[in-house]
Amino acid sequence: MRTSRDIRTANRYGVLRQIIASSPTSRQELAAATGLSLATVATLVGELLDLGMITEVGFEDSAGGRPRGLVAVNAAGGALIGVDIAETYVHVELFDLALNVLARAEEDVRTGGNRPERLVGQVAAAVGSVVAQAGTEAARVLGVGVSMPGQVDRDSGVSEYAPNWDHWHDVPLLDLLGEHISYPLHLDNPLRACAVAELWFGAARGRRDAVVVNLGTGVGAGLVLGGGVHRGVSNSAGEWGHTTLVLDGRPCHCGNHGCVETYVGAPGIMRHLEELSPDSALLRPGDQTATIDALARGVTAGDPVAVRVVRDTARYLAAGIADLVNLLNPEVVVLSSWVAATLGEPLLAEVRTAVARHALRRPLAATEIVLSPIPTDPVCLGAATFALEGALQSVGQRATVRRQPAPARSRTAPPV
Amino acid sequence: MRTSRDIRTANRYGVLRQIIASSPTSRQELAAATGLSLATVATLVGELLDLGMITEVGFEDSAGGRPRGLVAVNAAGGALIGVDIAETYVHVELFDLALNVLARAEEDVRTGGNRPERLVGQVAAAVGSVVAQAGTEAARVLGVGVSMPGQVDRDSGVSEYAPNWDHWHDVPLLDLLGEHISYPLHLDNPLRACAVAELWFGAARGRRDAVVVNLGTGVGAGLVLGGGVHRGVSNSAGEWGHTTLVLDGRPCHCGNHGCVETYVGAPGIMRHLEELSPDSALLRPGDQTATIDALARGVTAGDPVAVRVVRDTARYLAAGIADLVNLLNPEVVVLSSWVAATLGEPLLAEVRTAVARHALRRPLAATEIVLSPIPTDPVCLGAATFALEGALQSVGQRATVRRQPAPARSRTAPPV
Repeated sequence: MRTSRDIRTANRYGVLRQIIASSPTSRQELAAATGLSLATVATLVGELLDLGMITEVGFEDSAGGRPRGLVAVNAAGGALIGVDIAETYVHVELFDLALNVLARAEEDVRTGGNRPERLVGQVAAAVGSVVAQAGTEAARVLGVGVSMPGQVDRDSGVSEYAPNWDHWHDVPLLDLLGEHISYPLHLDNPLRACAVAELWFGAARGRRDAVVVNLGTGVGAGLVLGGGVHRGVSNSAGEWGHTTLVLDGRPCHCGNHGCVETYVGAPGIMRHLEELSPDSALLRPGDQTATIDALARGVTAGDPVAVRVVRDTARYLAAGIADLVNLLNPEVVVLSSWVAATLGEPLLAEVRTAVARHALRRPLAATEIVLSPIPTDPVCLGAATFALEGALQSVGQRATVRRQPAPARSRTAPPV
Repeated sequence: MRTSRDIRTANRYGVLRQIIASSPTSRQELAAATGLSLATVATLVGELLDLGMITEVGFEDSAGGRPRGLVAVNAAGGALIGVDIAETYVHVELFDLALNVLARAEEDVRTGGNRPERLVGQVAAAVGSVVAQAGTEAARVLGVGVSMPGQVDRDSGVSEYAPNWDHWHDVPLLDLLGEHISYPLHLDNPLRACAVAELWFGAARGRRDAVVVNLGTGVGAGLVLGGGVHRGVSNSAGEWGHTTLVLDGRPCHCGNHGCVETYVGAPGIMRHLEELSPDSALLRPGDQTATIDALARGVTAGDPVAVRVVRDTARYLAAGIADLVNLLNPEVVVLSSWVAATLGEPLLAEVRTAVARHALRRPLAATEIVLSPIPTDPVCLGAATFALEGALQSVGQRATVRRQPAPARSRTAPPV
């Protein structure tokens, strides 16, 4: 059962999301857009005004009636920090409340896999850097969202397993970060970050059911179901990269064989290129990014090997996407992350054609397949949104004592 | 966004579900079990009392406080009819409001696939038969739920596609039934029927995320996500039987290759037996039910061919179930329908072992795999529950005019 508290939090998300999308806007427009009653919208708008997240910005005429008050997001009402920890780098971005990027920092963490303390130090340095660059007062930072690949326990802040770092197990990431960072911290993984980014700011906004397919070194699917992110019972949902595409197929680091990820992740694409044309000039051994870039340029130039590799990848991808369409019947499938962004429209066109050969007619007819419209790093944006959701979830929390669901772990260490 | 109307309906389902599970019970116990406030529970209990679905049945002492009023389901407060249309038969059952079966009827529809009018006549005759057998006054029948295999449009009442009947397309099933049956009619498919049955009365009760795997001639997965049935944007979700297990594998009637259904549906199991041992005495050509029965007896008797076929089937099934575990991270996976019931514990034991080889550790640790505990036809029970949900959804419907979601199609033709 959803409690009234869950519902109020979800409605608060929905109203702020709509205000960010359409500032300035009136309570009446918000009620129409969200399906909530005007009274509910007025209460939620009042809470957001009290928090300083939005402001009153004047009135609009309403065809002879009383002028309607307009509200808009208060970009300067706070700052949010998103941390994207990946296999080889850490990106950190600082956003205002309209989710504009005010500052960026990056660290190279190729050696970070075996040394949690070093990684934590690098994240802390990058967080300090964006705050300093933006000249943001520490008190304005509402929170820091951290995206960590693999399986994470949101409530305890533990990174349980990182697929590409062999000796990384059960690292208490938020406890370690909390020794350096004094803002509330929120942990989740890139699948959820990309799903939340699309839900708030991208192709899943206003959709009830959407799937955000992440194509990078790792592969997965962030699920938006029933208008919110589906996390599953232990926050592990979305491991589409580890569903079987080819029974007894390529071995996967997860221990299974024939996983989707082994065919459509960047290493799988490189492997296919190598098998097809071992001496191809497109292949940059040991450098996934350069190889995928070279493939994208090759497709544009009409290189037959590049065209073949992208077409074959699209075919694997399409079989896996058809599984998502048949199983979940979403309104939209969004292709996100760097492999999708780099291979772009040519990949999308091949995928659309191939999905139609695999999916059932009725769910296929109801589904669009699109590239992510988010122009910046969606993982940083989504991670910052974890912090925004955390701030909205804690509104009035002290007033509520009964049956309060466990919030995402957040803590405030003594200020640095 | 979920509207307050959606939420009220979901809460009404939750409270009645709890009352049916634990009659007699107090409002205080209901509040504790559902997480709703006592005031909300009191309002919902009042509505159910007004509908005659529950009754006041006395008081219990409350440790020195005021005695607490007890309510119980009013079994005689109405009747519900469930219709299970399958490839070869129609089962119809009439239930009281405690969901006890009061009467059953069955029709043989092996020739029904090409003749909607004949099938509709048979359904109407069986519905008439159960009402007559139970001696139920027509006015007490709250509705008839109809489960039809394949893709159905709930809102229009159209059966769009039936996978095993070649010439069955876009049949306006509820319009045709409405010419014979004067009760409100509700259409959906067996995946949803089994999911709703487990959610209200079986292994998914009280669970937030559950998957009900249907193993019969056709194969699919009813999804319970976020405490309710996930239908997808065009009511097509759950087509797990048409997800790819073996890329370029066995051809499927859906047009794809290597679908889960071609390996673990009854015809796929028969095919495997035939390939393994073409002269096996276990094989009953043309009779799926007899062959699966013979396999179950063979396993009990230690027949090596039967043991091998069940083990191989469990392996295919486990790879497909691991996909559901990794993608959706449910609390429970329920094996339902006649193939699962017939092969029973030996199949379950093999499946549990094999899923552990395919699934990721964290979601696997959070998931139970169980056989359906529902002792009767789960599709009839679930179909009757569609009618129960329809009756609960329409409470106070006339009083609500704004932003009312389209209800499941229901109509009342002139009484017969």
